[in-house]
Amino acid sequence: MYIKVFLKNCALSCYQRQKGLSTLRKCGTAVLGASLACAYGTTVVACKDVTFMAKTVTAEEELKRANDMRSRMELMIMEAQAEFCKALELEEDGGKKFNVDKWKRAEGGGGVTCVLQDGKVFEKAGVNISVVTGNLPPAAVAQMRSRGKNLREGVELPFFAAGISAVIHPRNPYVPTIHFNYRYFEVKDGEKVDWWFGGGTDLTPYYLDEEDAVHFHGTLKAACDRHDTSYYKKFKKWCDKYFHIPHRGESRGIGGIFFDDLDTPGQEEAFKFVTDCANSVIPSYIPIVKKHKNKMYTDNERQWQLLRRGRYVEFNLIYDRGTKFGLHTPGARFESILMSLPLNARWEYMNVPYERSREGKLTEILKNPKDWV
Amino acid sequence: MYIKVFLKNCALSCYQRQKGLSTLRKCGTAVLGASLACAYGTTVVACKDVTFMAKTVTAEEELKRANDMRSRMELMIMEAQAEFCKALELEEDGGKKFNVDKWKRAEGGGGVTCVLQDGKVFEKAGVNISVVTGNLPPAAVAQMRSRGKNLREGVELPFFAAGISAVIHPRNPYVPTIHFNYRYFEVKDGEKVDWWFGGGTDLTPYYLDEEDAVHFHGTLKAACDRHDTSYYKKFKKWCDKYFHIPHRGESRGIGGIFFDDLDTPGQEEAFKFVTDCANSVIPSYIPIVKKHKNKMYTDNERQWQLLRRGRYVEFNLIYDRGTKFGLHTPGARFESILMSLPLNARWEYMNVPYERSREGKLTEILKNPKDWV
Repeated sequence: MYIKVFLKNCALSCYQRQKGLSTLRKCGTAVLGASLACAYGTTVVACKDVTFMAKTVTAEEELKRANDMRSRMELMIMEAQAEFCKALELEEDGGKKFNVDKWKRAEGGGGVTCVLQDGKVFEKAGVNISVVTGNLPPAAVAQMRSRGKNLREGVELPFFAAGISAVIHPRNPYVPTIHFNYRYFEVKDGEKVDWWFGGGTDLTPYYLDEEDAVHFHGTLKAACDRHDTSYYKKFKKWCDKYFHIPHRGESRGIGGIFFDDLDTPGQEEAFKFVTDCANSVIPSYIPIVKKHKNKMYTDNERQWQLLRRGRYVEFNLIYDRGTKFGLHTPGARFESILMSLPLNARWEYMNVPYERSREGKLTEILKNPKDWV
Repeated sequence: MYIKVFLKNCALSCYQRQKGLSTLRKCGTAVLGASLACAYGTTVVACKDVTFMAKTVTAEEELKRANDMRSRMELMIMEAQAEFCKALELEEDGGKKFNVDKWKRAEGGGGVTCVLQDGKVFEKAGVNISVVTGNLPPAAVAQMRSRGKNLREGVELPFFAAGISAVIHPRNPYVPTIHFNYRYFEVKDGEKVDWWFGGGTDLTPYYLDEEDAVHFHGTLKAACDRHDTSYYKKFKKWCDKYFHIPHRGESRGIGGIFFDDLDTPGQEEAFKFVTDCANSVIPSYIPIVKKHKNKMYTDNERQWQLLRRGRYVEFNLIYDRGTKFGLHTPGARFESILMSLPLNARWEYMNVPYERSREGKLTEILKNPKDWV
């Protein structure tokens, strides 16, 4: 066994050499990705066994040697993927397991897409990581310039991106859908390297349980507060603004946090914040799944859930920046991008719930986002 | 009774005063829209009773008085809507009827949206007409300039648009989905008025019946050939190009015809062509509905239909110019735009049918559009 771990002050984890152990069902090869050293800090705080869902995208030896932010981010997202997938599988009570696809991108890099479809508890759950390099076309550079990045105009620039993205659509209408995404970006302009983090976690209930909303937002707020007490308020507002469906005048869900272009106070601190956010997904969501997953529900409730899933599709296909960017990128793996879409969705003409119904109350909250904590 | 009818050489129809007659179920008011004079040509050829689905958008008296292209187009689309809706209701065999919504647009004009939802034969059928006026924002003018229109840059210009648009999603997977859209556009720049027609009809089968494909394309080709023998080939190709889903590398369906910016050989001729196309929808589609609507099908076939409907949603929400233009127009009636979406749709991760299966054969055709006539 090979352990080399030193985490400063939060529940990050270590990596153990676990030769021969395999969680890679579909590809049928052994998982060696877990055998990695991670020297983020100076103090050992926690140590967990982590087996990744597949081999790392970047060669193991290279990640071990480098220990730069690219490598540390890749390890962090591989670990977050594995922990989240396993937490979800546990809720399936012996139902389906995640299907694991490791893929390569011709232009550079690749990813690991884990999908659990038609499960007992989860109708469709997708957890994807990608680590890609290439050249940003001038149009993409222009888009970044418009967001305030100091980059040259009209040229292709080399980039690196590593991120995790997940959307979980449960079967029971009382269990909300969750989405999260955390990413690290580098753009090289001459000798200068611009870097930043982005991401967020947000919840989409079909029936509103206020206790759930408070728990969910409270968990995210606690993660934010550990790093900067101004973050939660700012990122909650950003989230409400981002996950808005303009043509319907309503939000996709009850929000959470969302941020982009985070490069303060420093790389180390920003990475720790993002890691803490990623680690907060399980405690923010799994208790809600446990609470509702065995509740009885009617066909009317199921139909309402499917209608709301239609709205989810509208947001993702029409407005979501990530989806649009992905689908318009030549050589993008569209199956990994579209895994965010629900297994089933429905569109009824002019379905407006009665104001005083539970469906009406949810709609009211979606039209007027509320502060939960 | 009041008849005044004069159509030149094809199966266009006349309008009869039918006071007191009502097809306006939802609004519950009498239909007077049918009491209109139409003096398109010089010879009486055919005469049918036509009761519109609702009152015309422009006041009846004004339409009668004007007899310009705007008015004639409004009458043509009102009539096409009524005839198509009635032809579909006949196929329902006593099942559902169309729900009729007449709506106004604050910025000018309005429309009539007819939706039949959850019927015996049609899972969701939407037939919409709209007649709108307003000012085109400079961005929309720029888009038209990029298509070759000689319009001033950077200014708002007054416009008029009248069109019919329909999407029919049947329940039985053996009955294809049909879409058609015919529109007339005017833009005023100073003293000059630019006008053009656009539109098309296309078919989306779930299981391919080659005989249907030949019948459908043959009917459209016949309509085209009556006006210009070069049209069908050109517009069929345009259709294949337009209804393409780039990220999947496949077409939405087996095509049909599609054209835009048609202002030749003259306004009268172009109007007659578009009218002939609109009149060809029923003979191109209804025989296919009759042929398959009572066929037995399995749940696997239904699941495949739902998956293909997911692709339909992808095209409409990501790529369709009309949907995008509509949803990004402030004050647009989004329910009328999104009536094109199916009642139910499905997304499975990595569903690739076996090559030799019927699903695989359809996919092959969608990846390599074929000439049918």
